[in-house]
Amino acid sequence: MLHLAADTSPTWVAHVNADVDTLLLDHAHCEKKAASTAMNLIFRYGDKPELLRALTAIAKEELEHFELLMDVLERRGKVVERLSPSLYAGRLMTAVRKTEPERLCDTLLCCALIEARSCERMKRLSEGLDDLELRELYRSLLASEARHFQVYVDLARKLVPTEDVSTRLRDLADHEASTLVGEDEPVRMHSAVAS
Amino acid sequence: MLHLAADTSPTWVAHVNADVDTLLLDHAHCEKKAASTAMNLIFRYGDKPELLRALTAIAKEELEHFELLMDVLERRGKVVERLSPSLYAGRLMTAVRKTEPERLCDTLLCCALIEARSCERMKRLSEGLDDLELRELYRSLLASEARHFQVYVDLARKLVPTEDVSTRLRDLADHEASTLVGEDEPVRMHSAVAS
Repeated sequence: MLHLAADTSPTWVAHVNADVDTLLLDHAHCEKKAASTAMNLIFRYGDKPELLRALTAIAKEELEHFELLMDVLERRGKVVERLSPSLYAGRLMTAVRKTEPERLCDTLLCCALIEARSCERMKRLSEGLDDLELRELYRSLLASEARHFQVYVDLARKLVPTEDVSTRLRDLADHEASTLVGEDEPVRMHSAVAS
Repeated sequence: MLHLAADTSPTWVAHVNADVDTLLLDHAHCEKKAASTAMNLIFRYGDKPELLRALTAIAKEELEHFELLMDVLERRGKVVERLSPSLYAGRLMTAVRKTEPERLCDTLLCCALIEARSCERMKRLSEGLDDLELRELYRSLLASEARHFQVYVDLARKLVPTEDVSTRLRDLADHEASTLVGEDEPVRMHSAVAS
């Protein structure tokens, strides 16, 4: 359903359990970044009303999740502080084509795949975290990630009629999966792990 | 209460009544821009939790107002489309000092003054628009503009303890008022009018 080309290695959750605060901090930054990405698209494509509506709703929801993660961090005696971002989104976005309407199509599908990967990893967290409260948190967040995946794919289908969106989604999913295989990286929501 | 150094010329509402759809469109863009400015500050000052909370709440509320303005435009058979922005915010922000913590202080106070001016102009709209439904809309939005003004000033007072925030606010308010006097500009929420 999420169109991912490869599953996350089971070792990823073990890494997270060893440093769960860093995962939560990175997750907070991911929500903030997701809101900002939606907002940037609202500015870049300000003449597409259908896109504005959907992305404004997503931006608001990501900001609510950012607040939720700030709450969780605070309860654990942590605050939102700077953290080097994972290389994932940057690597993924190198596949975005430079001319319109391909650029819009690819950007929306990359956003969709980020949501899909977040959903898949949150499922892992909901099943494999040592902390049972955090398992519950991630179970509660799963559905909106899956919904956002669908919103982004639907927008691509609506706004880029000449594009074969399904084929492109499959190609980008292959690329996405390839960015997550390699050396073990520091704990992040979208960190690569040695397979 | 809003610390503005000069009132808007009464002729401004007359200009707006002649082209109210452009005012609504510009207002939609202003709400979007306000959300984006709050988000940019969230990124630039990501290590100040108190600021993150307040600005996340503001960004969400500005996005809700953006949705509200999209609704209003739609009911009038218009959509959100591109519009050359007014020169107001750019002119205002030229006064922001370049080094920290003065940069943060000035940015917050300029944001406060934009909210204050919006509040003052929305009051004019709520009293002087020909369209009675739109008067009601602007009456309903006044309070949140005034509240955002206060949030930005309070943040400046909290985060920039060494700065004489009141003196700086007075200086920036003088600068803000000076940017609104001149030739009549095209209808915008913050357009200058010949006095």
